[in-house]
Amino acid sequence: MSTAKWIWYPAEYETYHHKLLSFRRQEYGCDYACHWYVANTELSVRFFRTFVAQEDTYIKVITHSKGMIRTQNGLKPVNEDILITKGEQQICVELFDLEGFCSFYLDSKYVVSDENWTTDLHDNHFINVACEPALTSPGDDPRKFPFEYKEVKPVSVEEINGGRLYDFGKEMFGIIEFDKLIDGMFLSYGESREEALDKVTSVIHESLSADDEARRPARAFRYIFVTSESGEYPHFTAEYEYLPIEDKASFRCENEKVNKIWDICSYTFHLNSREFFLDGIKRDRWVWSGDAYQSYMINNYLYADRAITKRTITALFGKPPYRTHINTINDYSAYLIIAVLEYYEATGDMEFVKSVWEKTKALYDFIVSRLDERGYVVGLYGDWIFIDWGEVDKQGAVCAEQILLWKTYLSMQKLSSLLGEDGDYPSRAEKLRDNILRDFWREDRKAFIDSFDSGKEQISRQSNIFAILYELVDSDCAEKIFRNVLENDNVPPITTPYFKLYELMAMCKLGRIEEMQTYLEGYWGGMLALGATSVWEQFKPDERGTEHYAMYGGSYARSLCHAWGSGPILLLGKYVCGVKPTSTGYKTFEVEPKAGKYKSFVADVPVNNGVVHVEFKGNSVSASADVEGGTLIFGGKSAVIPKNGAAEIVI
Amino acid sequence: MSTAKWIWYPAEYETYHHKLLSFRRQEYGCDYACHWYVANTELSVRFFRTFVAQEDTYIKVITHSKGMIRTQNGLKPVNEDILITKGEQQICVELFDLEGFCSFYLDSKYVVSDENWTTDLHDNHFINVACEPALTSPGDDPRKFPFEYKEVKPVSVEEINGGRLYDFGKEMFGIIEFDKLIDGMFLSYGESREEALDKVTSVIHESLSADDEARRPARAFRYIFVTSESGEYPHFTAEYEYLPIEDKASFRCENEKVNKIWDICSYTFHLNSREFFLDGIKRDRWVWSGDAYQSYMINNYLYADRAITKRTITALFGKPPYRTHINTINDYSAYLIIAVLEYYEATGDMEFVKSVWEKTKALYDFIVSRLDERGYVVGLYGDWIFIDWGEVDKQGAVCAEQILLWKTYLSMQKLSSLLGEDGDYPSRAEKLRDNILRDFWREDRKAFIDSFDSGKEQISRQSNIFAILYELVDSDCAEKIFRNVLENDNVPPITTPYFKLYELMAMCKLGRIEEMQTYLEGYWGGMLALGATSVWEQFKPDERGTEHYAMYGGSYARSLCHAWGSGPILLLGKYVCGVKPTSTGYKTFEVEPKAGKYKSFVADVPVNNGVVHVEFKGNSVSASADVEGGTLIFGGKSAVIPKNGAAEIVI
Repeated sequence: MSTAKWIWYPAEYETYHHKLLSFRRQEYGCDYACHWYVANTELSVRFFRTFVAQEDTYIKVITHSKGMIRTQNGLKPVNEDILITKGEQQICVELFDLEGFCSFYLDSKYVVSDENWTTDLHDNHFINVACEPALTSPGDDPRKFPFEYKEVKPVSVEEINGGRLYDFGKEMFGIIEFDKLIDGMFLSYGESREEALDKVTSVIHESLSADDEARRPARAFRYIFVTSESGEYPHFTAEYEYLPIEDKASFRCENEKVNKIWDICSYTFHLNSREFFLDGIKRDRWVWSGDAYQSYMINNYLYADRAITKRTITALFGKPPYRTHINTINDYSAYLIIAVLEYYEATGDMEFVKSVWEKTKALYDFIVSRLDERGYVVGLYGDWIFIDWGEVDKQGAVCAEQILLWKTYLSMQKLSSLLGEDGDYPSRAEKLRDNILRDFWREDRKAFIDSFDSGKEQISRQSNIFAILYELVDSDCAEKIFRNVLENDNVPPITTPYFKLYELMAMCKLGRIEEMQTYLEGYWGGMLALGATSVWEQFKPDERGTEHYAMYGGSYARSLCHAWGSGPILLLGKYVCGVKPTSTGYKTFEVEPKAGKYKSFVADVPVNNGVVHVEFKGNSVSASADVEGGTLIFGGKSAVIPKNGAAEIVI
Repeated sequence: MSTAKWIWYPAEYETYHHKLLSFRRQEYGCDYACHWYVANTELSVRFFRTFVAQEDTYIKVITHSKGMIRTQNGLKPVNEDILITKGEQQICVELFDLEGFCSFYLDSKYVVSDENWTTDLHDNHFINVACEPALTSPGDDPRKFPFEYKEVKPVSVEEINGGRLYDFGKEMFGIIEFDKLIDGMFLSYGESREEALDKVTSVIHESLSADDEARRPARAFRYIFVTSESGEYPHFTAEYEYLPIEDKASFRCENEKVNKIWDICSYTFHLNSREFFLDGIKRDRWVWSGDAYQSYMINNYLYADRAITKRTITALFGKPPYRTHINTINDYSAYLIIAVLEYYEATGDMEFVKSVWEKTKALYDFIVSRLDERGYVVGLYGDWIFIDWGEVDKQGAVCAEQILLWKTYLSMQKLSSLLGEDGDYPSRAEKLRDNILRDFWREDRKAFIDSFDSGKEQISRQSNIFAILYELVDSDCAEKIFRNVLENDNVPPITTPYFKLYELMAMCKLGRIEEMQTYLEGYWGGMLALGATSVWEQFKPDERGTEHYAMYGGSYARSLCHAWGSGPILLLGKYVCGVKPTSTGYKTFEVEPKAGKYKSFVADVPVNNGVVHVEFKGNSVSASADVEGGTLIFGGKSAVIPKNGAAEIVI
């Protein structure tokens, strides 16, 4: 008998928590509706199981939902001991839940709630149930996300501007709970000191009175500013709310600034790893497919936690039919499909691919249904051609979007062949690549232009980075692009850590490890020098003072803790440590360190179900792993990394 | 400026109340999940309006949901006065609601919430908002259905079986509210005395203790049986919960038994006319498309209340994609499509047709997707071929289902041409009719068989009644069928008032008014003679005692107040008074009384937006109406019924 666990209809757990998350945003005193269509939970679900009771026995279906159990002895209630008579039994648990979602737990001698149950939505489409590793106790409540809590204390308190400013020393996400509330209080949260003190200009602030809840909702802050008309300041405690995921990765080199960057990136990533991968913890605190796409990659090099990637992909898919692009953004639909394949390649988890395959195809069909007569992605009414906040010519068909479409075709091709299905993906991919090269490539400039529809012939980094990263062009061509675009100061620089990650990955792909390292120290180091305790959504070195905090027309609207800033975790693990899978799920993988500027480093890097430990010093590298399949490559030599053993190469 | 009213995304009001209704069923102490897929509400909705403010002004969006208002002055909160500056204004109210559904009310000098707002689900598919006539006050809450309440008193109290039995004199639906509850109480509801006294065998019963809610949920009862272990009986009051719809119809003839039947039918219909047309008030208290189909027809001859028909059709459609048939029943999907056309024919309300047209087509596509290779409806996995509880050979393709499919094709043909759309409906209809005649008609027996797949060659009334009613055959053929099937005592009789209505309509269609009247007195009169105060779900005259209350394997599971029993309202209005539309929406209508056995009658019959008053006595009839378009026909003569005047014919 397997372990009993809470079970539900697939995707309902994610749908429920995504719904809560999507409508939890508050800004400037308003409850803030999510910008896109968010799927609701299902009202009622059936669960089926056949089993053999060796004797008369009692079972109890524990649930927070309502419903009944159909047994061979008739209808029985939930949350009560009910008699099951000896013999083969078919039972059906029929639940409904108008507020939460249908789930239950059953632990008994002859039957438990586990993966062996099937389920349907009264639609006779029977599939296997889903569950989460964290929920295996009868006292659990799947409606409550299993966060943990730790009290944190301010590092300083200051009387200022007629109030009290509490500094918690670093970016934080958590709950402020007062002993009591009194009338005339005002609470302002700040990621920066300036934000907290600016009261009504801060993104999150609220007037409080004696009737309000003394335990405030979990929010992002480093600074808390409290004013009180009466002059009385009730005591409060602060709790850090977090998801306990352990780092499998680590990185230390002789450069302490780099080590500090690694630590801050890890911390930023932990803060944004919650029900799902968030964009940022102050705002939007939503699940964005493009941001999440980078988080999946970073996850592979930090925790290799499958559960959060699966939850995030599942939440993003929502429920077909698709009415708009994911997050309304054309590129974000493409990332989601590409992510399904990349998740499979990193884990070999075919069960998950199967569970989202129908949705993947529905989203693909939606994408294809909106191509223009040339077969190009264009921005139709309601579409958002995002790519990046930076300067990209977005008129008509945009090169970067077409490269993502091409990568989508390739991903669909691989996924469908894994599932034994056909499709016209290869011919679509080939034709699209030909058209991209014909319409967007400028041989004289050795670069792709953003848009030929606009006539502006503008070259941006973004389209060209994708051409290198997704291997639309061969390595010779990639080299030319690198010299003509990425090393060309006339092409406007990338300003978001988001696209900066892609640019640095392209650099590394072309062997420019030292350039990447230099940039890393300058750009991420630049934020550190300004006192950042987590990585920002955007960083422009030439900005001054509170300019760094402004965005979207708001003085403090910039997020100072944005997941997409954690890219260095990936850059150091993938390119400096050189750890990459060479077959699905890291069944085989290579460790080919390229230390670049660093004289020595010691690191751990996840390899799906295991971890490889890498040490580099001058002319020697060693690697040990707790799984099979590794090959250490260094200085033209290679050595097998034995399971639970070490390989070393000295040159 | 029009009247301000609560507005919402179309179908959300119905979806919300249908969801509450569908999961309110309790039986034998269990919370009882609905048997089919029920659609959930939408989490967030946008509402758009452009208007001109002649001066700076304040507006206040009143809502029970959360959200914000996008104005030209930025984001503003709901439920507060916000400034709108002079000039043309575009505002967008963005709401979200995780428990109820998104709706709001706005009454101001330059803009009100009314039909002129457009709305979308963040999907850029902009449509007009919906509203309900009853909700026009800022204090309304669309989450509360506008029922009214009236205290009712028991007509007797009896000490019996160690408890107290309260008799309310007639079938009732309402709320029992105790002054207080004490431990050890037991409450049993009975539509019959026997049911209430049988305690745990009664369909609705509950143990109560001091902690329970003293105000019990609204339920059906005539009898209330209370026991109390302590011997203390807390006082309670009973409130009748009802929807105040006024009868437009009336009927009185010289036969008091007929008058009593009419009254009981009207009362039964009122009890089942709530958020939607229900099947029965004890159980299932659900919305069933076949039951509702008859209710739409009866409604046309009792209240002519469009709102409840529209709500019911909207709730039944739910939300595509369709996963199963409506209520899982093949015939019930067909009825829903046929009902859309019949609603249009009775009202001329094209707006409503438009509002459900996409869903109608989606349901039609679902039906067609499940036909077999011969083009016949057959019961696939999960389908329920219902037709009637009576004896019908349901193996393979069943004749009655094919006739409904044929009628569906005809309905789609008319609806699509009204909407200016094409379709292959006419050719499908013609081919299907040919096939039905080829495969199911038995010329030697002058009848349709139920199934040729089974080889049993069984003839039932049901298939043949449909052939007459839906005019699959001409009147000559219908006459033959009538004599060979309906007048043939070897064909098993109809046992449900449901199909009895169709049979009596077929009789009347063929001029058998007196036979209908005789049957009406015998069948409905038979229930009356047994003390019925409302019409039963099923009545078999040869049953005895409590056999009348049993069904579905439960001693008291039969509903004693079932909407489908109210058919005499229709029979008397349509065939005896002879009131029928002769063009869409009763723009023209005829009044052709056929008194049959009755010597005299006085009646009112709705004609869409008006009422016609009919008086018959011996050789004279008169009719008056408050609308134009009527023609009185009697004894081969005809006379125009003037608006607000009377016509009379004496022969």
